Amino acid sequence: MRRIVVALGGNAILQRGQRGSYEEQMSNVMKTARQIGDIILDGDYEVVITHGNGPQVGALLLHMDAGQALHGIPAQPMDVAGAMTQGQIGYMIQQALRNELKRRGIDKPVATIVTQTLVDKNDPAFENPSKPVGPFYDEETAKKLAREKGWSVIEDSGRGWRRVVPSPDPKGHVEAPVIRELVEKGFIVIASGGGGVPVVEEDGQLKGVEAVIDKDLAGERLAEEIKADIFMILTDVNGAAINFGKPDERWLEEVSVEELRKYYEEGHFKKGSMGPKVLAAIRFVEWGGERAIIAALDKAVEALKRKTGTQVVRN
Amino acid sequence: MRRIVVALGGNAILQRGQRGSYEEQMSNVMKTARQIGDIILDGDYEVVITHGNGPQVGALLLHMDAGQALHGIPAQPMDVAGAMTQGQIGYMIQQALRNELKRRGIDKPVATIVTQTLVDKNDPAFENPSKPVGPFYDEETAKKLAREKGWSVIEDSGRGWRRVVPSPDPKGHVEAPVIRELVEKGFIVIASGGGGVPVVEEDGQLKGVEAVIDKDLAGERLAEEIKADIFMILTDVNGAAINFGKPDERWLEEVSVEELRKYYEEGHFKKGSMGPKVLAAIRFVEWGGERAIIAALDKAVEALKRKTGTQVVRN
Repeated sequence: MRRIVVALGGNAILQRGQRGSYEEQMSNVMKTARQIGDIILDGDYEVVITHGNGPQVGALLLHMDAGQALHGIPAQPMDVAGAMTQGQIGYMIQQALRNELKRRGIDKPVATIVTQTLVDKNDPAFENPSKPVGPFYDEETAKKLAREKGWSVIEDSGRGWRRVVPSPDPKGHVEAPVIRELVEKGFIVIASGGGGVPVVEEDGQLKGVEAVIDKDLAGERLAEEIKADIFMILTDVNGAAINFGKPDERWLEEVSVEELRKYYEEGHFKKGSMGPKVLAAIRFVEWGGERAIIAALDKAVEALKRKTGTQVVRN
Repeated sequence: MRRIVVALGGNAILQRGQRGSYEEQMSNVMKTARQIGDIILDGDYEVVITHGNGPQVGALLLHMDAGQALHGIPAQPMDVAGAMTQGQIGYMIQQALRNELKRRGIDKPVATIVTQTLVDKNDPAFENPSKPVGPFYDEETAKKLAREKGWSVIEDSGRGWRRVVPSPDPKGHVEAPVIRELVEKGFIVIASGGGGVPVVEEDGQLKGVEAVIDKDLAGERLAEEIKADIFMILTDVNGAAINFGKPDERWLEEVSVEELRKYYEEGHFKKGSMGPKVLAAIRFVEWGGERAIIAALDKAVEALKRKTGTQVVRN
């Protein structure tokens, strides 16, 4: 019995170009559930699942913004919106995965834990909010909102003005003891969805903050907390590449954590995209994990068998 | 050590006349957390919490309706909306309660489990949708939506047209084994929020349905599933009354389940309000529970000590 944390990328729930209807999302989630079913059956794995929430929280922020404008019903802050998407996506995954396992004759409870992720209130990210979220505004409205609500706003790639929030580094999960208990009892757990709801601790009290947390970096912390053997990031490409997009581009297969750290520090991996995935993989193996994998969602089982994907191993 | 399921009414999260801002809700939830903290400290209780979600799911349906109209972003169906409010409210309660306990020197993990509630696909409620949900429409729009989406719609008390959905009887919770495991390990669990996400089972496969479940009736099933000693419904009145609003009105203090069932069958308790609370209390004691309580939220501890509230006991 090995323990694995699987971090699902956005494509596990929503494909590029889709609008985000329930039918689209559930259909993708069912495909994802088949992959996870294969992992569980093939390898006798204890599985903890985490997932992104970018498109879902984006849609929810727009929905709430519209509802406040049209009906005067207050929009909820970002920490609450994050928790809402944990409920949304967790529900779809737990239902689809339970059904998938049942179809294969396995009766195994799957449960989503609403998860808070601790961040350091002195994280330098709070001084430099950089992650665009929510609706686009014209310059005047954006600046008015910035004054009224204390938001930071930026002009986003010529498409209009948007709010930007910090993306602090995750330190750990408040609910880690609960997740650990369930994994040890053989339950399948979905946790830290969207990287978890970011909270800071002051005088022993937790408080939500309006920020976003990278789900792969948070998933890596979770993998440490539950003492996973393997941390696997599933995305829409086959792994990490150096010199990406250049003539000497090279996809990384088995790579030592030392070598990968060198490439990371040389700036081979794109910020906010492959960068945090590679960093999360490095952290896991440096912490003491056996192996970290970055692979395509539809090749999860082959990647676990080392047949594809970037396999990050100890030196 | 006794085990108790506490079902929180809407007033634990939002007061009448409030619009539903985060600040309002969190302030109410913090007061509620003090009550629950008192219960835990006073009585050495193992606590499972469930809660309503009426105003929150109502707000979310309006938000999504507006967001779809303004931005073309698909609204999610009711089962998903219910799961979203479980994340929203669960997050607020688990944070506030963890902080409250910490303030009193207790380090006890609190976790929300996203919960699915099984209903019978042949429940007669599906033939007779009666619970109004979501936005008001003019007659023409309502009838158009009814044709397009297969909704049932009604004219709601002169205020406009609305969608109505079924309110089937809860049978049990898919995640009961998970909840039981956590309670037995001493964790505080929040579950079956809003009565849980209604699902039906067909050929062993679960499927979400667009319906609402009474949170007290669902909470009662949960109390059975975790073998609770006490089931306590906290609301905005001091208990149940017979001949309510009449000259011979009488508030019930200690009452046997047999006597209460007689009053219930005589029609003393209002449908959709005190009715399901009384029915839930009856079911719990008839099942074998020691005591069911219907009491005011701010008198929870006194009610546990039998000083206030309606106390439903075995014959």
